[in-house]
Amino acid sequence: MSEYKIVTAALIVIGNEILSGRTKDANLQFLGEQLNDLGVRMRECRIVPDIEEMIIDSVNQCRAKYDYVFTTGGIGPTHDDITADAVAKAFGTSLERHPDAEAMLLAKYKPEDVTSARMKMADIPVGASLLKNPVSTAPGFRLENVFVMAGVPRIMQSMFKEFAHELIGGAKVLSASVTSYVPEGTIGMRLGEIQDDFPDADIGSYPFWNDGKPGTNLIVRHTNPDIVNAVCDKIVLMIRNLGGVPVDDNRPG
Amino acid sequence: MSEYKIVTAALIVIGNEILSGRTKDANLQFLGEQLNDLGVRMRECRIVPDIEEMIIDSVNQCRAKYDYVFTTGGIGPTHDDITADAVAKAFGTSLERHPDAEAMLLAKYKPEDVTSARMKMADIPVGASLLKNPVSTAPGFRLENVFVMAGVPRIMQSMFKEFAHELIGGAKVLSASVTSYVPEGTIGMRLGEIQDDFPDADIGSYPFWNDGKPGTNLIVRHTNPDIVNAVCDKIVLMIRNLGGVPVDDNRPG
Repeated sequence: MSEYKIVTAALIVIGNEILSGRTKDANLQFLGEQLNDLGVRMRECRIVPDIEEMIIDSVNQCRAKYDYVFTTGGIGPTHDDITADAVAKAFGTSLERHPDAEAMLLAKYKPEDVTSARMKMADIPVGASLLKNPVSTAPGFRLENVFVMAGVPRIMQSMFKEFAHELIGGAKVLSASVTSYVPEGTIGMRLGEIQDDFPDADIGSYPFWNDGKPGTNLIVRHTNPDIVNAVCDKIVLMIRNLGGVPVDDNRPG
Repeated sequence: MSEYKIVTAALIVIGNEILSGRTKDANLQFLGEQLNDLGVRMRECRIVPDIEEMIIDSVNQCRAKYDYVFTTGGIGPTHDDITADAVAKAFGTSLERHPDAEAMLLAKYKPEDVTSARMKMADIPVGASLLKNPVSTAPGFRLENVFVMAGVPRIMQSMFKEFAHELIGGAKVLSASVTSYVPEGTIGMRLGEIQDDFPDADIGSYPFWNDGKPGTNLIVRHTNPDIVNAVCDKIVLMIRNLGGVPVDDNRPG
């Protein structure tokens, strides 16, 4: 039965620079794909500025609602890195210097480079465990179901790979895609009927234009490969009945 | 006084494909930058799946909290396009066929291409006004402070440009950046002191590595150019005092 358990996650991206458009987030796409492979479904992403109360609210709303919560950003050595403190407050606790984190940072930096700003990165909420950072040493942390990671994609990815085995996923969502040059507006009704026949399949319709020619990419997602295939067969039949040709048909496995 | 009014916005990105990692959102960055130019600050972005209650909740929470709310995605002709209906429900109203939208769609399609799926795109919430879509005709709509747009970036951008003049911005945030090869951990404390001296300036610190050399990009944002310049001057002095050289110093023009 547990293979059909649905395990959910949310990502909270923290940083003014994402909201102003200066920096483009790259963490959602990476995490969405990685979690999917682990049987964890990304259900929501919130992008919030470096404002304490917004981080606290997002963390508390999401940790109550989803199995896992990930945050990226705001754990560096400068004044605008307020994530650790905000997460501590969300849990009603405070920061304390973690001896292992302190030892790692002291081992990394030359004595003249040991600044109080850098050592601040060893302060994590009481009760949290460290998340290793193979790229730049300064660790993230896990507190209950909340995983606090760096914002720089290369560092975040290396941290995630270190603890990914701790995540307990549910049923993995398999996906297939069928692409054709039949426009969305032409397949709309029939596709809705297929959706009605398979109410728990996730059928997504994504229009595209290729050299000015409209087409549709249909994505079918379900935990059961037989259902994915049955929906795809219906879609292929629908496309042919509408006089179209499936130009691409990718099934799971 | 109105030039110092703070006008805020949120973006709600609707679509399973963004959360699964299949598609990378490109709308936040565009809107963040465009709104900033208009004196509107993007304060939050939520990315939610094609689930009615999540769209309703996000719209209602955000429209109460921010001056403007923008949504992207889910207004096409297929069964998974549920945004118009969800927004109508968020406002406690329902959809009705809008005569102008209907006329535009009928003028666009050949009679044999007029499907009920396509005409569904003329159904918008009671009381909403249309947002023109110069690329693919099917309109978005505005209901009070909520602007509902297409998800395809090219279409969203063309829609936004049509109605951008309707937005009433406040004080425009000016930004400057100073870049150097002084690492974040070295400038952390001093930078915090500069922030303390200018508590209402937004000073962001963004580490980078260039050919393995660590550096920091400092972004200063404020509505008053004199304050932006004063903070940048302090930052340049700090970098020089730490033995560094500002390799890039971009002030508001």
